[in-house]
Amino acid sequence: MTQKIWNVYLSGEIHSDWRERIIEGTKAKGLAVTFTSAVTNHDASDMVGVNILGSEEDNFWRDRKASGINSIRTSTQIKEADIVVVRFGPQYKQWNAAFDAGFASALGKSIITLHDSELDHPLKEVDEAAKATCRQPEQVVEILSYLLS
Amino acid sequence: MTQKIWNVYLSGEIHSDWRERIIEGTKAKGLAVTFTSAVTNHDASDMVGVNILGSEEDNFWRDRKASGINSIRTSTQIKEADIVVVRFGPQYKQWNAAFDAGFASALGKSIITLHDSELDHPLKEVDEAAKATCRQPEQVVEILSYLLS
Amino acid sequence: MTQKIWNVYLSGEIHSDWRERIIEGTKAKGLAVTFTSAVTNHDASDMVGVNILGSEEDNFWRDRKASGINSIRTSTQIKEADIVVVRFGPQYKQWNAAFDAGFASALGKSIITLHDSELDHPLKEVDEAAKATCRQPEQVVEILSYLLS
Amino acid sequence: MTQKIWNVYLSGEIHSDWRERIIEGTKAKGLAVTFTSAVTNHDASDMVGVNILGSEEDNFWRDRKASGINSIRTSTQIKEADIVVVRFGPQYKQWNAAFDAGFASALGKSIITLHDSELDHPLKEVDEAAKATCRQPEQVVEILSYLLS
Amino acid sequence: MTQKIWNVYLSGEIHSDWRERIIEGTKAKGLAVTFTSAVTNHDASDMVGVNILGSEEDNFWRDRKASGINSIRTSTQIKEADIVVVRFGPQYKQWNAAFDAGFASALGKSIITLHDSELDHPLKEVDEAAKATCRQPEQVVEILSYLLS
Amino acid sequence: MTQKIWNVYLSGEIHSDWRERIIEGTKAKGLAVTFTSAVTNHDASDMVGVNILGSEEDNFWRDRKASGINSIRTSTQIKEADIVVVRFGPQYKQWNAAFDAGFASALGKSIITLHDSELDHPLKEVDEAAKATCRQPEQVVEILSYLLS
Amino acid sequence: MTQKIWNVYLSGEIHSDWRERIIEGTKAKGLAVTFTSAVTNHDASDMVGVNILGSEEDNFWRDRKASGINSIRTSTQIKEADIVVVRFGPQYKQWNAAFDAGFASALGKSIITLHDSELDHPLKEVDEAAKATCRQPEQVVEILSYLLS
Amino acid sequence: MTQKIWNVYLSGEIHSDWRERIIEGTKAKGLAVTFTSAVTNHDASDMVGVNILGSEEDNFWRDRKASGINSIRTSTQIKEADIVVVRFGPQYKQWNAAFDAGFASALGKSIITLHDSELDHPLKEVDEAAKATCRQPEQVVEILSYLLS
Repeated sequence: MTQKIWNVYLSGEIHSDWRERIIEGTKAKGLAVTFTSAVTNHDASDMVGVNILGSEEDNFWRDRKASGINSIRTSTQIKEADIVVVRFGPQYKQWNAAFDAGFASALGKSIITLHDSELDHPLKEVDEAAKATCRQPEQVVEILSYLLS
Repeated sequence: MTQKIWNVYLSGEIHSDWRERIIEGTKAKGLAVTFTSAVTNHDASDMVGVNILGSEEDNFWRDRKASGINSIRTSTQIKEADIVVVRFGPQYKQWNAAFDAGFASALGKSIITLHDSELDHPLKEVDEAAKATCRQPEQVVEILSYLLS
Repeated sequence: MTQKIWNVYLSGEIHSDWRERIIEGTKAKGLAVTFTSAVTNHDASDMVGVNILGSEEDNFWRDRKASGINSIRTSTQIKEADIVVVRFGPQYKQWNAAFDAGFASALGKSIITLHDSELDHPLKEVDEAAKATCRQPEQVVEILSYLLS
Repeated sequence: MTQKIWNVYLSGEIHSDWRERIIEGTKAKGLAVTFTSAVTNHDASDMVGVNILGSEEDNFWRDRKASGINSIRTSTQIKEADIVVVRFGPQYKQWNAAFDAGFASALGKSIITLHDSELDHPLKEVDEAAKATCRQPEQVVEILSYLLS
Repeated sequence: MTQKIWNVYLSGEIHSDWRERIIEGTKAKGLAVTFTSAVTNHDASDMVGVNILGSEEDNFWRDRKASGINSIRTSTQIKEADIVVVRFGPQYKQWNAAFDAGFASALGKSIITLHDSELDHPLKEVDEAAKATCRQPEQVVEILSYLLS
Repeated sequence: MTQKIWNVYLSGEIHSDWRERIIEGTKAKGLAVTFTSAVTNHDASDMVGVNILGSEEDNFWRDRKASGINSIRTSTQIKEADIVVVRFGPQYKQWNAAFDAGFASALGKSIITLHDSELDHPLKEVDEAAKATCRQPEQVVEILSYLLS
Repeated sequence: MTQKIWNVYLSGEIHSDWRERIIEGTKAKGLAVTFTSAVTNHDASDMVGVNILGSEEDNFWRDRKASGINSIRTSTQIKEADIVVVRFGPQYKQWNAAFDAGFASALGKSIITLHDSELDHPLKEVDEAAKATCRQPEQVVEILSYLLS
Repeated sequence: MTQKIWNVYLSGEIHSDWRERIIEGTKAKGLAVTFTSAVTNHDASDMVGVNILGSEEDNFWRDRKASGINSIRTSTQIKEADIVVVRFGPQYKQWNAAFDAGFASALGKSIITLHDSELDHPLKEVDEAAKATCRQPEQVVEILSYLLS
């Protein structure tokens, strides 16, 4: 009898260690979870388009070349995920995280949001689409642990 | 022979007159377009949950009650739209606009973004999912005028 | 410019006047709403199978003949609905109402539940799938009034 | 040549040993079946929301936190199931079981119901959506044995 | 308030007057039903391919040209139908009727079969996919009358 | 690098050895193909409903109990198939085979029909939905051999 | 009783009068058909991106801006079409026509191709996805006339 | 923890070594990629229909028999692909490549185009549907290497 391996996509903030804390936490508990994510190396991600496909004078098209390639990875991974965890940190616009949440929601994926309570009001539409709102990565681990029990 | 009426959902910023400029512009050209939108009265929208369903002590649940009701309107309207115009202004988090864009993208809707070039970099993933990026509402009107020609 | 007519399916309890109160309430407000529902004449609904298709000795098959015909109406109407209101009263099993809610949920329909707080705990899974939980039919009318504003 | 492993979701009553009898019965026959189910520890399931995400004063939101997390598991498992067995016992509201049946039906899953004949009439809509109605867990085992022959 | 017009596709036997009896019956009752059907002129239907697209020496390809054009009509109409009535008469292979039933079933359409009891056994798989099995066209009319009540 | 195993559903006639000739033919060529099929033991298939779920006086319901259980297997297997081979022999009504073809067609499955040229005209709608029409099982093997080359 | 208006998308060649001949032909027969099409003014179509959204130095991005806007129209119209007629003429690459055909095919639309026999071999994959291959626009009119009879 | 194996369909030109360069390139980097493709032996592909199913006098039907069989392979493989690479060379009509791109686009697959800049203008609609446009097969390898990093 094969055990289901849960597929979890980790979306959002790349400036704190929340991904590591979730991955390490599930590993410590021996949970059957696979994690996917966008490329989180900021420079590699921003420059991938021009690095591979050739330079652009206009930053709009430089970004387009990168976002095109990056969306191959993110859209494929979100479509294959059982759960999409969306993290919002205190800084930056993070519109790609909210975009991922909307994309996942329309696909009927289970969403877990992860953010501080200061962000509750601007995130109320995203939280409404979520099955749970966590404050700490360890709560995400606990949810996964419960789901796989 | 019946003429198709194009259905355009207007998502995002509620603090400038971009909706009116698009609606008036298409009306002046006599285009067969219907517009839909979230409730744009900020207070009515924020308080609709507790106004109708009863008060909440915790703002998280106050917001949830409102966002639940509001999502009936927005999800229904986006599903019925041919085109989703997503406007980002200079202020606020505007994660609901990015969420709408992701939701529309997963449904295969045609997206038009509307924002200044300062926001190009943080919106690169949203713009990648769009068919056109406009700087002025009048450009949206011109696109609609061309599409309906 | 055509105005959208919202399509609302009313599921559940047939022993109180909640349907009438919602229909009359929206009519009084002049809202552009169409309502659909299962056949709410209890005897006509239970006996429709044998009445049209011939008698059955075994009640299991008598019920099957009826539920087959009734499901043509309910499944068609739920698929066409924008909003599904599901009412649970104090009596009876009402499993068909919960079935309708699950069916609507998998189709991505917006659900509004309507029941007293005594039923909150056994209905927690159904309420979780809903965008709003009302206690009075007039609250449903208020939500519709807000959504169509 | 790989043999298909059938995926069976077991929904409903948690107060009798019907799950064990089905699981043991298929094991005894050596059938290639995987079973999934909601968390059937009643207290763990009811309290999971507040246990992980923090306490709530209002039971409605306490239940919501739990049902949100539980629905991640149930919706994922039902979507992956080939067959959904829905058990109704003599006690309790069991609206979540009927909700699961409706959810599974809209997804085109094969449903098998399991209940005594006293419940036939109130379950006529659910049974209509089912491929078979069993009275004993052993009949479910026999069906699985036949299907995998 | 607009009334729903039910869309009913009539599939199968072209050698008896069952279509007329259903259409006239619903007209007599003033029901809001639209009927669609394949072209029921046998010769026109068989020869449409070569009549329009040019002759073929091989009957296999003559039939292919016809069935290609006919399937534009039948597949479009079945996709738009709420209800598909499938009639089997005492003669001929009628595999196109069974094909239509399978096609409709996979699309989640409500199917009503119409045939004598002598055909029950060979039609058991088709009847299983149906919501009702009628013996007389007038029973189909009664079902429609009930559904639209 | 994993090699794709093609999944082929074999539908239709149970009175000749066409299934064995296809299965043996692909085995002889070492092709990576898995075959599925309805239960082809005629008596076991016809009586499975009453054997497991209890006897019925009326043959219509006896057949319904069987066809319900059998459809769990056939619908699941067709949904998982890459290719559906549909065989029509010289005898019997074989409406279940045509039903399977229609079901497969609506799901976008690749269909291969297998029948003698005498049946070409009554099968013209089914053949139109097919990617190839074979006369001998060995031609199906050759197609599979080509597809997996 | 409302009559269905068939929606026909006309894709491909813009250098001959085939669209006019189909449109005039159906008008002469009084058929209930609505036609849609890409913008067929070659210069307007090519330059729409830079005309509305601002100039580009690189022709690749000039074309992208145009094709983005044009795809809003073509993808929306193909999704709403019942039938997609795809015309290939003797000149030019016409890859957009073949792209439209593939797009329509994956959506399950009925395709009619229109081209001379010299193009049969390079169009064999496109013709295979079509329900009919015509040589003259008048044959398309005849097919529509038959389908709407 | 299982690693995702990316599935890449290689569509288009069969007269240069671009497939080999991509396959060898990913192999050299040890990437977890599986490649699929149409049968690229030109004669085998063109004659497969008549070779297996019997000769045809009319080349149109000879081609149809081949394209039917070939579409089993291509449609199945594209539906299973994560990424579809579409190559256009300097010669031939290559409408099947553009058809594949349209088919993949409607299914929401990530498309990468591969062609020289001379073809940019006639391929503008296809490139618009793509996530990246490459000039050299090695760029495709680099994108895959980045995506799987």
